[in-house]
Amino acid sequence: MFFGDARAISPLIRGTKHEAVHAPRLLEVDDPLRATLRGGVDSSMHAAIRAIAGDNADAAVSAGSTGGLMALSRHLIGTLPGIRRPAIVKTLAGEGERRFRMLDLGANIGVGPAQLHQFALMGCAAASADGVQEPAVALLNIGSELRKGPRSVRAAANLLADDARLRYAGYIEPDRMFGSSLDVVVVDGYVGNIALKAAEGAVRMAHYLLGRELANAAASGQVVERLQRVRDAYNPQRYNGAALLGLNKVVVKSHGGADRQGFANAVAQAIQALSAALVAQIAARA
Amino acid sequence: MFFGDARAISPLIRGTKHEAVHAPRLLEVDDPLRATLRGGVDSSMHAAIRAIAGDNADAAVSAGSTGGLMALSRHLIGTLPGIRRPAIVKTLAGEGERRFRMLDLGANIGVGPAQLHQFALMGCAAASADGVQEPAVALLNIGSELRKGPRSVRAAANLLADDARLRYAGYIEPDRMFGSSLDVVVVDGYVGNIALKAAEGAVRMAHYLLGRELANAAASGQVVERLQRVRDAYNPQRYNGAALLGLNKVVVKSHGGADRQGFANAVAQAIQALSAALVAQIAARA
Repeated sequence: MFFGDARAISPLIRGTKHEAVHAPRLLEVDDPLRATLRGGVDSSMHAAIRAIAGDNADAAVSAGSTGGLMALSRHLIGTLPGIRRPAIVKTLAGEGERRFRMLDLGANIGVGPAQLHQFALMGCAAASADGVQEPAVALLNIGSELRKGPRSVRAAANLLADDARLRYAGYIEPDRMFGSSLDVVVVDGYVGNIALKAAEGAVRMAHYLLGRELANAAASGQVVERLQRVRDAYNPQRYNGAALLGLNKVVVKSHGGADRQGFANAVAQAIQALSAALVAQIAARA
Repeated sequence: MFFGDARAISPLIRGTKHEAVHAPRLLEVDDPLRATLRGGVDSSMHAAIRAIAGDNADAAVSAGSTGGLMALSRHLIGTLPGIRRPAIVKTLAGEGERRFRMLDLGANIGVGPAQLHQFALMGCAAASADGVQEPAVALLNIGSELRKGPRSVRAAANLLADDARLRYAGYIEPDRMFGSSLDVVVVDGYVGNIALKAAEGAVRMAHYLLGRELANAAASGQVVERLQRVRDAYNPQRYNGAALLGLNKVVVKSHGGADRQGFANAVAQAIQALSAALVAQIAARA
């Protein structure tokens, strides 16, 4: 089901099984929360979340405002028992064929130890849903020594170490997480969002330098092709799609600047979450 | 003056004007603060900081523990009037020939608005010492809208906007800071350290992918050379050296894994800080 301006959508899906739902208003990032929740009923995001809340659809994918998506999801779908607030999780590429999950990436700012502990449980459930057995989980910090970092992270370390359901691997520094054998990295939402965007910015910077040098080089077609592959391997589009964990339903946030491939990846992630029964896995763990 | 095991140092500097000072004990990262301050008098770091505190030397460069260097510097040298705690600043490469400064990178965890404001003043003084006129300063945050981010950052935004001495440019997201025209980026020490290490880790990851692809490619010598240049342009060694701002003297921290070139860059940074009268610039501004 496609939610938006049906006059624009219908011609694109004619002759398919897809359905256009007319909900033409677009929520803006700057819309106040109250307007989103109360006045936003004619918005495409409100209509889409209503559809999964009413069991007319199994999962929702949106490239709209993260704050709006989070607020509407909590309000209309609700969180699983015991979950205070959902967290945003993303799967990132490590060295080799390795993948790891990082959360929270921006939904929860200034969280305490209990919430970091809950992120660890939800992240491990997501890893299990991806087929990882006994996932290893670490806390993002600025050193590996026990006394490093903010009080909340140090207190969370005790909670994670004491929880027999978790395979706790200690602190991880962000420069090591890509090369580690971790499955889940846990962090406060403000810090996690900063870390993710710093990594993206640095890679973009490396690409800029690469492009400048290659423009001057007599590179063979084969080399250019391989370098393009490197660039693609870290293309955010390829890893587009962040799941909102802790809700009663599957909701995936796509990047606002996603292209066709990126949005398709976000949809594929929603389908994968459904077939792996991600919500039930989290309900059982957290 | 070289501080350490004089038996090892002396043969290396024979016939030069350099001097070896015998202070053979090495402070460990795990040494408790009390041991560093009281019991560490025979350590090389303690001896070096004593030398600048006693005006026997103008600046100190150390590749030892950041925590130890910060504690000894505060204890033996002291901070400038009005500075509560020093901040760690580093100059990073942006696109083109642009450079920008980022602070704090790990000395102060969980800081409030007043301290972020002070970081902005010190960072702008450092930019001025580098020859930047009317430096533009921004706060690192997870969005550009005013209501984004932690309370401390939002409150700091008001302080920076109201300070006529500053050219305040608003919030900057870390994926945009490399391509922006900013001169100073201000952030809490925990978050700044995470952002820096996430950027380093992502670049290392890109290099890993690059190396893997190039190993399989029939790359010409010229192309390999240019790619090496890209790697070097983001080599942390080249930007090695973080200044401790807010002290009565020049203290520069080198990365513990610095090579010859990296350590030389840290020394060059200390010399540049002296010739630009960095301490006086900060005293005048902060």
